[in-house]
Amino acid sequence: MENQCTTLLHSAFIVTQDAQRRIIEDGGIAVKQGRIAAIGAWQEMRHWQAQEVLELGNMLIMPGLINAHTHATMTFLRGFADDLPLMEWLTGHIFPVEARLKPEVVRVASLLGFAEMLRTGTTACVDMYLFESAVLQAAVQAGIRCQGGEGLFAFPSAACPHWQQGLEQTRALAEKYKGNERISVAVTPHSVYTTNDALLIAARDMAAELDLPLHIHLAETTEETAQSLSQHGLRPIAYAESLGLLSPRTIAAHLVDSTEEEHSLLAQRGVTAVHNPSSNMKLASGIAPLPQMLAHAMPLALGSDGPTSNNRMNMFTEMHHAALLHKGHSGNAAALPAQSVLDMATHGGARALQQHPLLGMLAVDAPADLIALDLNEPNMQPLYSPVSHLVYAATGMEVRLSMVAGEVLYRDGLFSRFDYPALLQEVAAVRHWVLKKQA
Amino acid sequence: MENQCTTLLHSAFIVTQDAQRRIIEDGGIAVKQGRIAAIGAWQEMRHWQAQEVLELGNMLIMPGLINAHTHATMTFLRGFADDLPLMEWLTGHIFPVEARLKPEVVRVASLLGFAEMLRTGTTACVDMYLFESAVLQAAVQAGIRCQGGEGLFAFPSAACPHWQQGLEQTRALAEKYKGNERISVAVTPHSVYTTNDALLIAARDMAAELDLPLHIHLAETTEETAQSLSQHGLRPIAYAESLGLLSPRTIAAHLVDSTEEEHSLLAQRGVTAVHNPSSNMKLASGIAPLPQMLAHAMPLALGSDGPTSNNRMNMFTEMHHAALLHKGHSGNAAALPAQSVLDMATHGGARALQQHPLLGMLAVDAPADLIALDLNEPNMQPLYSPVSHLVYAATGMEVRLSMVAGEVLYRDGLFSRFDYPALLQEVAAVRHWVLKKQA
Repeated sequence: MENQCTTLLHSAFIVTQDAQRRIIEDGGIAVKQGRIAAIGAWQEMRHWQAQEVLELGNMLIMPGLINAHTHATMTFLRGFADDLPLMEWLTGHIFPVEARLKPEVVRVASLLGFAEMLRTGTTACVDMYLFESAVLQAAVQAGIRCQGGEGLFAFPSAACPHWQQGLEQTRALAEKYKGNERISVAVTPHSVYTTNDALLIAARDMAAELDLPLHIHLAETTEETAQSLSQHGLRPIAYAESLGLLSPRTIAAHLVDSTEEEHSLLAQRGVTAVHNPSSNMKLASGIAPLPQMLAHAMPLALGSDGPTSNNRMNMFTEMHHAALLHKGHSGNAAALPAQSVLDMATHGGARALQQHPLLGMLAVDAPADLIALDLNEPNMQPLYSPVSHLVYAATGMEVRLSMVAGEVLYRDGLFSRFDYPALLQEVAAVRHWVLKKQA
Repeated sequence: MENQCTTLLHSAFIVTQDAQRRIIEDGGIAVKQGRIAAIGAWQEMRHWQAQEVLELGNMLIMPGLINAHTHATMTFLRGFADDLPLMEWLTGHIFPVEARLKPEVVRVASLLGFAEMLRTGTTACVDMYLFESAVLQAAVQAGIRCQGGEGLFAFPSAACPHWQQGLEQTRALAEKYKGNERISVAVTPHSVYTTNDALLIAARDMAAELDLPLHIHLAETTEETAQSLSQHGLRPIAYAESLGLLSPRTIAAHLVDSTEEEHSLLAQRGVTAVHNPSSNMKLASGIAPLPQMLAHAMPLALGSDGPTSNNRMNMFTEMHHAALLHKGHSGNAAALPAQSVLDMATHGGARALQQHPLLGMLAVDAPADLIALDLNEPNMQPLYSPVSHLVYAATGMEVRLSMVAGEVLYRDGLFSRFDYPALLQEVAAVRHWVLKKQA
């Protein structure tokens, strides 16, 4: 039957993020086989026959947000060490615990991260960490959309004595999740300052061979630039370019210490840049030249980075910070308008994810990845501009429903795919393990 | 009876903010006649006889946050105009609507603002606006603690054709609320750039005569400095000093364009400085030299400013922004540590409020102004450092209970003093009025 669907949603507002940035008042969405079958004014949608009708009332439906650079596992060290200079923080507090990491901790901590994401309206993420197979196991459990990659380093990690094993694991993961609707795999050399030529070239070749994204931290700090200049005689982006790492499959996180010439090159190569405002501020890495990147019409996405340097994984926070920080820093109150920021967290994230061309918008045939926010919360009242509220007023905790591929994963405090109270017990055990290891 | 109280609270954590910054695990608080009668480990507290026991489980109790500079009424224009240069925003969008303001709009919009504050853990605020008597009426209705002041301008406002009337209203309000437990009144000349010598001197004298706080916007932008230099031959802070405006009763909001020499003067005069990070960023007013102010050991508080330039009134957001912005701006990840920021939002706010010496901490004899946050939310897990979570991880929407002077004003989505769904109807009418006036 043409007008039969699985789920029919009805709400006061729909922010479609489609090509026309249509905002529908009193709208409906018909979901069928995980995709959007129809979307429009409720008058045109009410005749749809649905197995389930979700009458959401005074809510706002929008595309699920996409976190384009994160390390979900790092919830396990949330608030463990703050307010410290970067190197003291990394070498004195984070690395020693990470050195003892094990897959079960990764699975539990990642699942907590995905719970936080779904709770706050993020339905997809681009992740990189150690024991990434355990991260993707948690992503499958949570039902979230995820691109994962095993972090590759020139030195041994808790997960891999040598990066070649990491590459083999990447190949195995890519094989395992080939054709999976929600899970995909990337090749993820950690950065230029923690790798070497051989590793980066092998990563580039595997990404090309298997047609996978290549996700890397790039130009995060001036220290990284100084080290790259000293080792290679090139700034990080030029060094990456010299090895052929920059292509439309590349996701470059941070780009804090980057120049207009470099933006021009990145735009030409089609690289997706990921801005991480909270992490850059908290670690005092510098302030990325986002207004200049925006002027170059580069593909731009937003990320939370890991929750040790944030300390949350909430894309509403990242949108808010992207919009505010660059106004304050540039002295221009018109910099980074709300719509541009929302585009970064939806369209930009979808480009980083490289899973489906219609992700990040609510349009016919797009995957039904969407969220609904309660407009009755006092901070959402009154409403003149939905996009303004999403960027400036919403905390993310107004989210009442998160859906991926047509499946409700979170609604009104409940996660559909896993036992959240049981997860909290497991998180308590992880915390105990961290404190014992430290002692 | 010695061990009888009105309310006994029991929770997993209590962040006392007392002189020792004690954090109590598995703690209890006994409330009697609006004050804290006892506080300590649950073992020592469980013998208290209470009319009501609030078993809060895995929650964190802390002092209610204090918003030290706000314009609660401005909720009525939340998201009405964003991403605009300051003068275009003010003169093209905000002032024309404000010119038609009326007390009933002020009452409704302020009540919405207080609802947002109580919902997100703010139990007291320092407010300045037009028709402030209607703001205080709403504060009484909500039950929130509030210091209010009628904004005084050299030009006619919607509320007052002449500032002398504003001063008379201030006197009348001070008389009306004299001895009130929760409501107090300040003399509030708007700023040095919207007033004149006569107004400022009269305001200073009334504050001294009636022993009231004096609350003013000061040194907010470089444009203000330029105007003050041109009109008075003095920078704004020096001009204020020349008129004798700086004293321990003075609350100076913003101080963005301020120097170390000026901080030294302000510290000497005992002025309370209020930092408004979100507003300063959104309006591109500049970045206040907060690390330098902190080094001067000045009394420092935090404010949301009005929700047109923010667009929220959430002190967890302000704490987060104060902690992150100045790390990013100064390049020092150790700048503005979490404890300093929490002190600003509690002790600093209490100093601005000038109501009770023990406000801002949970200690015996302090007013029972407290909030409870749900630690089971994913972003609050795991917990190593409560203070870190309050500043970096909490959105404010984890608040499940807000209490002022021993009275529960908000709990689990319900406001005890007013009909929130009815308020939303009134807010809808205000929105309609704004749009009609604009058309």
